[in-house]
Amino acid sequence: MPISKEADTLRALYQSWTDQMVANPNLSILNLRSMFDEWGQPALEPENVTYKSDHVGGVEAIWALPAGADTKRVILYTHGGGFCVGSADSHRKMVGHLAKALGVTACNLHYRRAPEHPFPAQIEDAVAAYKALLAKGFDAKNILTAGDSAGGNLAVASVLKFRELGLPLPGAVIAYSPWLDMALRGKTLETNAGTDALVSRAILEGMSGMFLGGATDPLNPLANPLENDFTGFPPLYITCGSAETLQSDSEALHAKAKAAGVKTTLSVVPGMQHVFPSLAGRAPEADQEIARIATWYRAL
Amino acid sequence: MPISKEADTLRALYQSWTDQMVANPNLSILNLRSMFDEWGQPALEPENVTYKSDHVGGVEAIWALPAGADTKRVILYTHGGGFCVGSADSHRKMVGHLAKALGVTACNLHYRRAPEHPFPAQIEDAVAAYKALLAKGFDAKNILTAGDSAGGNLAVASVLKFRELGLPLPGAVIAYSPWLDMALRGKTLETNAGTDALVSRAILEGMSGMFLGGATDPLNPLANPLENDFTGFPPLYITCGSAETLQSDSEALHAKAKAAGVKTTLSVVPGMQHVFPSLAGRAPEADQEIARIATWYRAL
Repeated sequence: MPISKEADTLRALYQSWTDQMVANPNLSILNLRSMFDEWGQPALEPENVTYKSDHVGGVEAIWALPAGADTKRVILYTHGGGFCVGSADSHRKMVGHLAKALGVTACNLHYRRAPEHPFPAQIEDAVAAYKALLAKGFDAKNILTAGDSAGGNLAVASVLKFRELGLPLPGAVIAYSPWLDMALRGKTLETNAGTDALVSRAILEGMSGMFLGGATDPLNPLANPLENDFTGFPPLYITCGSAETLQSDSEALHAKAKAAGVKTTLSVVPGMQHVFPSLAGRAPEADQEIARIATWYRAL
Repeated sequence: MPISKEADTLRALYQSWTDQMVANPNLSILNLRSMFDEWGQPALEPENVTYKSDHVGGVEAIWALPAGADTKRVILYTHGGGFCVGSADSHRKMVGHLAKALGVTACNLHYRRAPEHPFPAQIEDAVAAYKALLAKGFDAKNILTAGDSAGGNLAVASVLKFRELGLPLPGAVIAYSPWLDMALRGKTLETNAGTDALVSRAILEGMSGMFLGGATDPLNPLANPLENDFTGFPPLYITCGSAETLQSDSEALHAKAKAAGVKTTLSVVPGMQHVFPSLAGRAPEADQEIARIATWYRAL
């Protein structure tokens, strides 16, 4: 399926990471973190967005503040990277693009990472930040949770945790290429293995191992959001690419949510790699998807 | 000499890089580039600054646009990293802080790097960008060149090249911890070897080897700005830390410039590591130095 040459830069970046991991199997978690921070390279700078380094609920965060944004609305964003790598900084530009398109602010969370901090440290940080946003005066309905890959898991799982805690629920949830099933049962793990330039069963096993820390069941419903009843869940937008090994996770989440009566939208974009909105500002496929999400959000 | 605990984060980051390079001597240039891009971690986000991805004179660049800045004035910034690593992205926040303090815009250049592009590719890119800024209508006197480490070399060498080309010269030059002497003759290379957490003779030899590519003399006056007469050079501000192996290079540049009648200022800050203004927004030592530079600039 033809994709833009700009979109191909993400495939090339992922292939470069894969090649480096193959060439040097002894790369440390520090080496991997610096490599995955290149995730920030594909997106161009979103214009007219300022940033602020902060702590929210005790968790490091970078605010994205688009000019003219509705400052009563905020995205609580959790970055991807298998719960182990990636950072608020690597995702700064793509979060800025999303906030700008939606006309809202964003609180881009630098949550604690595995293996130093296994499950449920990440959800604890998301809960602490959400409570802090509520305490700052944000109406729950004006908060969105959003995230990509493992951060897409957190954007969903944290809302399930808010529900368990009896907190008011956010107004909407956005998941880019969420990685949900810690038991790795999705069929696209095999059927898309030849097209996904980064995400393989081996990588997911390594990362879930660090995340679960040998102590948590891969079917624990807060580690594996698919193991839940979604009744009462907020409106949900899920996007992924058709080249992805994790496509099945997006489809399973959409099916689960739909079965529970949730207003859910799934957009599978032909030929795109994992977390293709990280091409924001550079590739038309990413910009068009972000525009569709903005249209969806404004119509809620 | 006591330094703030915030400033110590830079020493710790450098020590972590050194430890990783010792632990894994086979890190590729790609691994090193991703590691050195962590240079962006110490600085906090400068508030009220927006960014724009661009090409200037055919060279990739990130504009830093502080709210209320004089848009007739611009810093042409060249990042550090031994001509081989570092990027406009790794230096985005520190460049934003400098531009904001000076009340000007900045064009943060992502010039071509060695070893793929040895000397003089970096100066060619700086010249192309400078000509493009002049063509955009910037008055030369309203342009500053600035840079750190190898980029501090470029901020100086590019002006020597502008002079050679008969171009009008910029209004001022700022060098953070410039690395100037490709022949590595500075005495602090030995006397500060025990305090500098990153820069060693071995690292400099590796990087100068890639930069000079075996073809260029270490005393070539455009690769080694100390091998020049500075008569007619613009006002110059040089800052470095007293923990640095490259302190001698700052001192030699200051002495050369002073001997030629240049209005030159040297600030050696006690206990600071290489390129300590990369702590902007986090450590008082960096913020105070940037404030001194702003005072100097406004008085020119």
